[in-house]
Amino acid sequence: MFQTDFTALVDIRYPIIQAGMAGGLTTPELVAAVSNAGGLGTLGAGYLPPETLGREIDEVSMRTDQPFAVNLFVPSAAEPSPSEIEQMKDYLQPIRSSLGITDVMPQLTAYGPSFEAQMEVVLAKRVPVFSFTFGIPDQSILQALRQQGTIIVGTATTVPEALALVEAQVDAIVVQGSEAGGHRGTFLTDAKRALIGTMALVPQVVDAVSVPVIAAGGIMDGRGLVSSMALGAAGVQMGTAFIACAESGANEQYKHRVLTGRGEETDLTEAYSGKLARGIRTEFMAYMEGYSGPLPQYPIQNALTRDIRSAAAQQNNPEYMSLWAGQGVRLASTRDAGEIVRSCMQEASDVAKALTLLAAEGPIHED
Amino acid sequence: MFQTDFTALVDIRYPIIQAGMAGGLTTPELVAAVSNAGGLGTLGAGYLPPETLGREIDEVSMRTDQPFAVNLFVPSAAEPSPSEIEQMKDYLQPIRSSLGITDVMPQLTAYGPSFEAQMEVVLAKRVPVFSFTFGIPDQSILQALRQQGTIIVGTATTVPEALALVEAQVDAIVVQGSEAGGHRGTFLTDAKRALIGTMALVPQVVDAVSVPVIAAGGIMDGRGLVSSMALGAAGVQMGTAFIACAESGANEQYKHRVLTGRGEETDLTEAYSGKLARGIRTEFMAYMEGYSGPLPQYPIQNALTRDIRSAAAQQNNPEYMSLWAGQGVRLASTRDAGEIVRSCMQEASDVAKALTLLAAEGPIHED
Repeated sequence: MFQTDFTALVDIRYPIIQAGMAGGLTTPELVAAVSNAGGLGTLGAGYLPPETLGREIDEVSMRTDQPFAVNLFVPSAAEPSPSEIEQMKDYLQPIRSSLGITDVMPQLTAYGPSFEAQMEVVLAKRVPVFSFTFGIPDQSILQALRQQGTIIVGTATTVPEALALVEAQVDAIVVQGSEAGGHRGTFLTDAKRALIGTMALVPQVVDAVSVPVIAAGGIMDGRGLVSSMALGAAGVQMGTAFIACAESGANEQYKHRVLTGRGEETDLTEAYSGKLARGIRTEFMAYMEGYSGPLPQYPIQNALTRDIRSAAAQQNNPEYMSLWAGQGVRLASTRDAGEIVRSCMQEASDVAKALTLLAAEGPIHED
Repeated sequence: MFQTDFTALVDIRYPIIQAGMAGGLTTPELVAAVSNAGGLGTLGAGYLPPETLGREIDEVSMRTDQPFAVNLFVPSAAEPSPSEIEQMKDYLQPIRSSLGITDVMPQLTAYGPSFEAQMEVVLAKRVPVFSFTFGIPDQSILQALRQQGTIIVGTATTVPEALALVEAQVDAIVVQGSEAGGHRGTFLTDAKRALIGTMALVPQVVDAVSVPVIAAGGIMDGRGLVSSMALGAAGVQMGTAFIACAESGANEQYKHRVLTGRGEETDLTEAYSGKLARGIRTEFMAYMEGYSGPLPQYPIQNALTRDIRSAAAQQNNPEYMSLWAGQGVRLASTRDAGEIVRSCMQEASDVAKALTLLAAEGPIHED
């Protein structure tokens, strides 16, 4: 049921992608549970060193024989400014002190894992689906993926970005509405000017492209799935819906804040990473609003705040962790990932049937 | 077909409300055309003096025997600061000069029509449906409306606002997602913190209240209608979809910008009125971003920019008009209002049927 262009393309049963949330949320257990339930699990591997990525792909493969995806961050050229970095370090110092971080902040040489090295692993492991955000990889990479039969899924937040992805010959496009939690995938414009709601964005992209469109942002259950398909989507990507589930790698404080959260409490910030992202409001966001200097770009700012987020997580202090979540957060649940997929499909089936009853009562009159 | 709690409550054929866009867009011809086609037309009367409001209600009544609505702005206490006003007048002067406005800006005594006087007209004319935004009228007013059988529809942008409307015993709630064009209806929080997308907001409100919920924001066609109903809405409110239609009172420059607009081009601004609103980006918005002083509150700022907007409209200069539009603007059309309603319903019927076919293929498996 609910077979679409996308489920046929990837050879999965249900049109549900579990979003590739980076930062330890998407455990191999979670990814495999979603794929085993008939959806498409995604390893959010943006921050994983190549060796960890390889190990986690192997763990997913041991747990499922169904298709799964790996999601990576496309790098952009960041130009570190030593004075910007020093100024930010000074501003962050009171937080570091309050969390008891006594290490001198290390001299940063690399800001994150090498995308090229990550891609070598993705290619070597022949992952079934490769998805990406923050840009478009070079054609040499996409060509290598295509040659070995990997399905390629890009991320767009505007119609021009979707058209750029079509030009790059992706197989499907995740359309990220402004409701979505975590980082904005915007790459052709200022992310603050690309905050288009899912309800408005999906049909405009569907009209503009011929590849399958996956709706993302604010979708939490079977209602959201049918709603997205009515707009023309061939499937949905859900992230926040899985944050608090049994297999999620989110820590208990994060899960607690998600489960007690309200849609109104999320906020957009660049303060954690240098790139715009949506999450539950924290004291860290509030403190950073007092910063008057220029914010170091992603991934530099991300590296500068890393030990703060780690220490806060170890100390169960959610106010200095990044609590990425979308505007549907009130609807999150603690069920198993497989049960979330199945109940979403059951509800979708019921919703679609109820709509037909409504639609059946007769023709449109011309007065 | 598509009978819902809301269509039954108001006794209309189709669950489509044409939004009460203020500022001359909702001509009596437009309102009557929508109601005659089976939807619910709305006179956007927020800026209308009582005598004009009475005349326009009479014109609508002459053109249709079907239910229609009048929408008003609930006033809030604005405290004018003479120094703020003088500073703003100085900043606006170069625009006034460039538009050839030679009058000295008049000493403002009232900033807009009296809400109490407008309400007297609404009550005297016994309008079928009264809708409002920016707050909740006093119970004395709501009680008077109820006693004469007028259906009362409030506007919410968050779950707490929806709950406040239920507490005030409204008959239905328009839930305004962040995609919506024009003014934000937010009244319990900072409007900039209440920008929740339709896809996320509607199901959260539906879960929280038992009155019919009308989805608004980014809905442009039958796809959006079915999408909203899948989320649990009993109907939709569409504004941008009607701006460029034959009966709309929008001037030709405004219609042209809407028809050539793209979803990405809308922006949020407080600069025109002192209250947050979404519209197509203009030079006026850009100029006002350079203003460093505190912005006079609504409706004071609205009064201060009124002659600029009027002169710009007369000179066919859209860059200094307010071009309110939502994020679905790319999907606007020039058809007659009645044809927009009918084609929306026809498309909705087709979409709902296609979804059923998808849903029919079998049960959900438990692996």
